Amino acid sequence: MDKIIIHEVGLRDGLQAEKVTVPSEEKIRWIEGLFASGVEIIQIGSFVHPEKVPQMADTDALFAHFSAHKPVHVTLSGLVLNERGLERGLACGVEMFCMGVSASETHSQKNTGMTSSEAQTRIIQMAKQAVSAGKAVQCSVQSAFGCGYEGPIAQEKVLQIVAAYLEAGMTNISLADTAGHANPAQVEDLYGAIRQMDAGTKLACHFHNTYGLGLANCYAALKSGVTYFEAAFGGLGGCPFTKVPAGNVSTEDLVHSLQRMGLCQEIQLQALLDVAQQVGAFFERPLPGFILKSGSIVGFQGKE
Amino acid sequence: MDKIIIHEVGLRDGLQAEKVTVPSEEKIRWIEGLFASGVEIIQIGSFVHPEKVPQMADTDALFAHFSAHKPVHVTLSGLVLNERGLERGLACGVEMFCMGVSASETHSQKNTGMTSSEAQTRIIQMAKQAVSAGKAVQCSVQSAFGCGYEGPIAQEKVLQIVAAYLEAGMTNISLADTAGHANPAQVEDLYGAIRQMDAGTKLACHFHNTYGLGLANCYAALKSGVTYFEAAFGGLGGCPFTKVPAGNVSTEDLVHSLQRMGLCQEIQLQALLDVAQQVGAFFERPLPGFILKSGSIVGFQGKE
Repeated sequence: MDKIIIHEVGLRDGLQAEKVTVPSEEKIRWIEGLFASGVEIIQIGSFVHPEKVPQMADTDALFAHFSAHKPVHVTLSGLVLNERGLERGLACGVEMFCMGVSASETHSQKNTGMTSSEAQTRIIQMAKQAVSAGKAVQCSVQSAFGCGYEGPIAQEKVLQIVAAYLEAGMTNISLADTAGHANPAQVEDLYGAIRQMDAGTKLACHFHNTYGLGLANCYAALKSGVTYFEAAFGGLGGCPFTKVPAGNVSTEDLVHSLQRMGLCQEIQLQALLDVAQQVGAFFERPLPGFILKSGSIVGFQGKE
Repeated sequence: MDKIIIHEVGLRDGLQAEKVTVPSEEKIRWIEGLFASGVEIIQIGSFVHPEKVPQMADTDALFAHFSAHKPVHVTLSGLVLNERGLERGLACGVEMFCMGVSASETHSQKNTGMTSSEAQTRIIQMAKQAVSAGKAVQCSVQSAFGCGYEGPIAQEKVLQIVAAYLEAGMTNISLADTAGHANPAQVEDLYGAIRQMDAGTKLACHFHNTYGLGLANCYAALKSGVTYFEAAFGGLGGCPFTKVPAGNVSTEDLVHSLQRMGLCQEIQLQALLDVAQQVGAFFERPLPGFILKSGSIVGFQGKE
């Protein structure tokens, strides 16, 4: 089996919905904590307009800071939504670009003002540009398992976007369960279909735990050959004031479950727990992650 | 695929750790709500000494009450721990007896004062007696996936107990993850081994969500041929004052996930949610279940 790669997205997908802006020095402390955990990829921000998402306004500065202060085993990733973001990312030393197209027309329009098809053309051009610049690129399909506006999303729509990515030479493809609608049977089905299209592609997943199925979907993804897992410290994510809070899968819970299955042994779970505790302390509320409350049983050999 | 059977155990495994005793009329209201849900089996109590677990003191009275007020599609089950309990259960009209042996010596001693092997002999005798009386019987292995005292439990130990059940002619066998230690790979492994021993046995599972893996383990069990799923309304269970709160898998979350996969369509999810809301209102605290907070998306076809 290929090595499992953990992609920590708490600093981006966890923070972007939070009302209280986290100071850069606090983010730097958390990122340094994540370095100590041995997690391979850390998404430290998103290149959106600073007025739209003030929480992400220091993204360029963070990349610039870490270009000189980063362990070699870690890759720092950034999310880009448009050409301006890509330009900023190239200027400040992003190592891995993440970009995506929504399979839901409604979500695509609300998120980008473009149809899914327009977004696809534009994102593929950007992805090629980033590859030409020598960068790692991960292309995603958002709302791949269902949409909070549209409900079910046709599998053909998702596969058509994936096919366009593959044709453009992209080798790392992520499916994002933006609304948390995925179920494990569907996960196996969809990744299975992609593997039939191209068995060599690196597959990534990004699940939200809205309906409690985050870890079940991760297990189904694992069984389907997915090796890149996106998750957020403490299960942060989703606005606490919406009707449907949509936290990410918690990184500690995910790593805990993988380690219980004998995988990801090189990751320091305690370092992840330390960061999640710092994040919870900063926001002054308990985060949704389970292991934060119950403690780890990795390696537990009995107490009597 | 065989029909999936939901076994609601909230009235027993959910309530037994609660400090506030629930009045019988409240339990009756919840049970009647469960009747409306279409759930097939409801465990309404446990035949323990009333001074030991006052919460279960009305078990005989509840069975007597419902012997004349029960829809035909529902089976009422009761947990028995010893011969006295079996006697009481036979006297008050229990339809399905649940009884078990712990695969952990420490847990067995603490729970029953017997070694695992002594408990096995005794439970098998009781099970045979219940079968002779024309009752349905489910035999379980507790701490089948790990123990809070001993840590890992050898698979051979679990399989040895299962083999004894099979040899005694038992046809419905449950594995209980008493401490919440199970992981989905282990679940597939253990149930796979049992199916190799006897492909025709009805298999049941009982998971706790201590480390967030309850639904992932249920999915692994489903894939392994398990058709009886035990769960508790709202995810109730486990003492709220212990270091490791060990709620059961929430019945609504489980049914929601199964319905999202096209299964269990005959169950009225809203009726389950109504009961869980009543239980939460009674205890005046939010219960751990996800769907209680996020709402159901079964059948959601978009809102625009």
